[in-house]
Amino acid sequence: MSKAANFANERVNRRTMIKGAAGVTATGAALGIGARMNGNDAQANALQESVESIAEARGLTPQDIRAALKTFVPSGVHDDYLVFSSGGQSGQVLVIGVPSMRLLKVIAVFAPEPWQGFGFSTETQEVLAGGAVNGQVLTYGDTHHPGLSETDGQYDGQWLFINDKSNARIGVIDLRDFETKQIVKNPHIISNHGGTFVTPNTEYIIDGSQYATPHSWTYAPLESYADAYRGAMTFWKFDRDAGRIDQAQSFSVELPPYWNDLADAGKGPSMGWMFSNTFNTELSYGTGGGDLPPVEVGASQRDMDYLTIINWEKAAEVVAAGKAEDMSGMPMIPMSVAVEEGLLWLVPEPKSPHGADVTPDGKYIVVSGKLDPHVTVYSFEKIQQTIADGDYEPDAYGVPVLDFESCVEAQVELGLGPLHTQFDDQGFAYTSLFLDSGIARWRLGGEGIDDGWQLIDMIPMQYNTGHICVAEGDTAAPAGKYMIGMNKWALDRFHPVGPLLPQNFQLIDISGEELELIYDMPIGIGEPHYVQMIKSERLENIWEVYPEVGWNSITQSPSDVATQISEERVERDGNNVTVYMTMIRSTIRPDFFEVKAGDTVTMHITNVEMAMDATHGFVMPGQNINLSIEPGETTSVTYVADTEGTYPYYCTEFCSALHLEMMGYFLVSP
Amino acid sequence: MSKAANFANERVNRRTMIKGAAGVTATGAALGIGARMNGNDAQANALQESVESIAEARGLTPQDIRAALKTFVPSGVHDDYLVFSSGGQSGQVLVIGVPSMRLLKVIAVFAPEPWQGFGFSTETQEVLAGGAVNGQVLTYGDTHHPGLSETDGQYDGQWLFINDKSNARIGVIDLRDFETKQIVKNPHIISNHGGTFVTPNTEYIIDGSQYATPHSWTYAPLESYADAYRGAMTFWKFDRDAGRIDQAQSFSVELPPYWNDLADAGKGPSMGWMFSNTFNTELSYGTGGGDLPPVEVGASQRDMDYLTIINWEKAAEVVAAGKAEDMSGMPMIPMSVAVEEGLLWLVPEPKSPHGADVTPDGKYIVVSGKLDPHVTVYSFEKIQQTIADGDYEPDAYGVPVLDFESCVEAQVELGLGPLHTQFDDQGFAYTSLFLDSGIARWRLGGEGIDDGWQLIDMIPMQYNTGHICVAEGDTAAPAGKYMIGMNKWALDRFHPVGPLLPQNFQLIDISGEELELIYDMPIGIGEPHYVQMIKSERLENIWEVYPEVGWNSITQSPSDVATQISEERVERDGNNVTVYMTMIRSTIRPDFFEVKAGDTVTMHITNVEMAMDATHGFVMPGQNINLSIEPGETTSVTYVADTEGTYPYYCTEFCSALHLEMMGYFLVSP
Repeated sequence: MSKAANFANERVNRRTMIKGAAGVTATGAALGIGARMNGNDAQANALQESVESIAEARGLTPQDIRAALKTFVPSGVHDDYLVFSSGGQSGQVLVIGVPSMRLLKVIAVFAPEPWQGFGFSTETQEVLAGGAVNGQVLTYGDTHHPGLSETDGQYDGQWLFINDKSNARIGVIDLRDFETKQIVKNPHIISNHGGTFVTPNTEYIIDGSQYATPHSWTYAPLESYADAYRGAMTFWKFDRDAGRIDQAQSFSVELPPYWNDLADAGKGPSMGWMFSNTFNTELSYGTGGGDLPPVEVGASQRDMDYLTIINWEKAAEVVAAGKAEDMSGMPMIPMSVAVEEGLLWLVPEPKSPHGADVTPDGKYIVVSGKLDPHVTVYSFEKIQQTIADGDYEPDAYGVPVLDFESCVEAQVELGLGPLHTQFDDQGFAYTSLFLDSGIARWRLGGEGIDDGWQLIDMIPMQYNTGHICVAEGDTAAPAGKYMIGMNKWALDRFHPVGPLLPQNFQLIDISGEELELIYDMPIGIGEPHYVQMIKSERLENIWEVYPEVGWNSITQSPSDVATQISEERVERDGNNVTVYMTMIRSTIRPDFFEVKAGDTVTMHITNVEMAMDATHGFVMPGQNINLSIEPGETTSVTYVADTEGTYPYYCTEFCSALHLEMMGYFLVSP
Repeated sequence: MSKAANFANERVNRRTMIKGAAGVTATGAALGIGARMNGNDAQANALQESVESIAEARGLTPQDIRAALKTFVPSGVHDDYLVFSSGGQSGQVLVIGVPSMRLLKVIAVFAPEPWQGFGFSTETQEVLAGGAVNGQVLTYGDTHHPGLSETDGQYDGQWLFINDKSNARIGVIDLRDFETKQIVKNPHIISNHGGTFVTPNTEYIIDGSQYATPHSWTYAPLESYADAYRGAMTFWKFDRDAGRIDQAQSFSVELPPYWNDLADAGKGPSMGWMFSNTFNTELSYGTGGGDLPPVEVGASQRDMDYLTIINWEKAAEVVAAGKAEDMSGMPMIPMSVAVEEGLLWLVPEPKSPHGADVTPDGKYIVVSGKLDPHVTVYSFEKIQQTIADGDYEPDAYGVPVLDFESCVEAQVELGLGPLHTQFDDQGFAYTSLFLDSGIARWRLGGEGIDDGWQLIDMIPMQYNTGHICVAEGDTAAPAGKYMIGMNKWALDRFHPVGPLLPQNFQLIDISGEELELIYDMPIGIGEPHYVQMIKSERLENIWEVYPEVGWNSITQSPSDVATQISEERVERDGNNVTVYMTMIRSTIRPDFFEVKAGDTVTMHITNVEMAMDATHGFVMPGQNINLSIEPGETTSVTYVADTEGTYPYYCTEFCSALHLEMMGYFLVSP
């Protein structure tokens, strides 16, 4: 296949190896001189020889040497940027350092994770229960789009949100301790995609439906699709003080049964508005078990789909005015009301669109039609003028469709399969080309720019790039410098690991004249969809340890079951046994307790240490209990001791030389 | 604390930055020359300038440049070695490339993992059920020691085993597809540590008990510890043809209630024997809820503990001869029989030992006493002679204790907190020093070596090193070249990520005169305990896709519920609905099916593609179903459709431009 051929050409071949060797022979001499300038001949010579031998032995080209020097982060030095990545079907979030591309942490969100004790402690089980569907607690998520909280359109480093496409849920992560605090289930939709995208001051978290169903996913025959099925755009209210999504203050806007893909919030002149591209305006629901065309055909028949435009500030006023209907405990603005109030509009866009991205200045919306080689650029000013001019016709659902030509600023031909666009600090836009396996760099236009709306160059990727990310590239003030391409196929880029391959994140230096590929990072867990890259310096509120001994990390307040040293005890109330436990290097107190088979045991465990990195784990054999208790934290767990026996519990973090002795015995008598 | 001070000294300071800048200014010139030799002046100049600016801007020292060049693996080039790492309390195995230290894959073993569908499909749920304790299926593990299968004492790249310390379980991973095929629960013990270590031809997988309990962890008061509690050394028989542990052919040897730590199998002259260090010979079980000393004190009172020595070949004969007793369905050789048959011996060793490692030639056993600054080297020949001389006295349990002086070859003073030892191909041994935060390099002695049994040098680590790994360094033929130190504390080595910090793997180049630290890798999931590093070329049997369409990846044979294109169907039998489904870019067939609330639905899904990397995921909203179906694989799942509604299912791997259209509707009617 062409990918394989492409790969072959990318390989370091004999010629480049010779070139590399030649390059570094002199390099060694140079470094020798460099070191000699510090007056150490022995070191200088050793260095010279070693550098020569390293690059010759490893066949590094001068380009490889540049890439190595641009990405290597020395021992003990911290990365300049952090990436928060969707973990795809792993249900987690990945935290990656840039430029080293080192995985710093996996944050458990929708799936239990034993190392963190997530889903094992009572507190985290309650977080997972918040995302139950039809009363069933789920243990996975299909995470797609992380959204960092913003102030004035820029990342503020305080909160991270991420959606589970497969069940229309949102997770809330506190960036003081990088742990998940809340999961909410959307009561109106069962499938989302256009989330999570925040408004410029995190007033709302935008969450758009993907596959249409009857609202609240109730039963309705497919034949009634056009009448009974609907889409929705949900606006989740975030309460910064509480650190929680406030469902009572959240609402949705009813939409036709089109499928919403990606969304973005307006900013600057477009503040108060949001934009989502919308496909399957053909209303295909597949074969329906009959002779209708499958969705891949049925949803690709019309030349144009729609860009959905909502004035969310006005929508909030409409809800406040009591014009919304309650639906499953959350307000829904009916389509008719939304149209009547002038807060819902459509504009045609090329078929099967995949990205909708607002430019940093808030003046334009860039849309990619994945089956069209162009990106289409809409002017917010023109959209407003078209609305003012009344230049629109209703669609089948009565939603006004603005005139295409009147709203379009430009169309830029980039290549095959354009998907997503991000921006840098130099006036450039970058768009992934899925089918061409590359990323296009093009110049933004507008007032005072003569050579705008033009393709500049393209860098090939390995392979099939989906989302891309430029540092802070979806904010009002992009940082530029680095770009990551999230490649869906890795093929032969990495050593084989069986039929299930990693994905491939490629790091590109965009600071120079030429786009320069400097690192390939395999993603060996999940298929990330989208990432955001933030300057490390913005993350200034991170805790090294919890504020005090006896801290509830979910409520982020002192725990009412905290236990201090010498307060450890075992209390019995009928068949209920409560254990107040402490952990400190290298003892667990109590180190012995006994119950009767059938007793219900509740344990409150406090890590009484306040030293950085002095985490203790707690495991109870046979009871499926594995906890992580960070310095200062109090964690609880409850279980029924249903089988008599002898169970040694212990600390699972190698915390000291006598770590293996940090244990105790739990006895269950007949 | 001293660690912080240590860190401060390690930082790249202004002086080294200047030095670095000086070094690379000339480097650039050199590379310019290098490129110029290929007759491209423009490229040469660009290269020269860029290299200068890169290193100056990033403050790289000449040492940093060497490290970068030694570890950078260019785009599309594969790593030379693979590391299989315990995932600690994550319950998983991590696969890491060396020297790039890139995480290539997380293999789900003891904990469910949605991306891989592990624990979600019927087939993998059965694997997890195999490790149930007291009838309860567990969803975590405390993985400690990965063991690669061996032939003639060298890794053969076919199988990987790993233990769950917290429940005494073993997982079996097939290295054709890097997936877990079997989990077995030890019926004799509830807590292991000295596992998994394989015998030279993988005849057995050694699994030693850690915390003593009554056998089969039945109830017995702590006061009866000395009489009722016991240890055990289990030998799991591995059937290569079946690719499974054969419990019927496995057995244990009863041991005193001492705690077994780490074990290793003899090889060469010591073939047929195994060695495990044993602590808490004081029989401490902590306070017992009373005034007894805690374990950290009670288990550290005697100056000497024991090295446990077992002749496993003879033990197998004893079992074959019917001299073992059946216990919970698996043979156990009583201590009295083991002593009588002369297959069980003890030798004193310095208190609280932590590592027991056999030299590549099989002649010596190196033991670390973590509270003793020495490693103690035992001679297998001397041990045999001591046995022949009858130079031993029984311990309290009648097990013969050999004379210490008669068995010891040497004691080498290395530093504080020696834990684990590995070997290279140059006659050196390497021992981690937990308390000194370093790794010592020392010379092995023996016949014809005058300067043996001596410390050569030590490299500081960041921080508190536990296990270490030299490439193939625990086999009969170590590869040398690379060493990894598994550091338990990271402290400030990486950008902060909250109170739960990553661990720190440090890569060291051991090929030169000086030990050279070349990479710091954060481990952001779990606390790895041990890793093994294998030459990539030994992994020659890895599958790109499954052998044929319709493959059961657990049985590794054709599935009897495979479905080919056009064979898709929905069958109903009373309240049981069976769906035979196929997935291929970009359609799911059937793309619609309807059942009645309360029906039990069984789905058999076949990925009919045979293209590398063409994996499809399958998700069913609200049913907690997330599957991964690799090319050729057939996967099954069963659930009760208990809530009426409309559920869109879809492919979760972004497989094509029309991936979003790869979906269908599942309707549950009232």
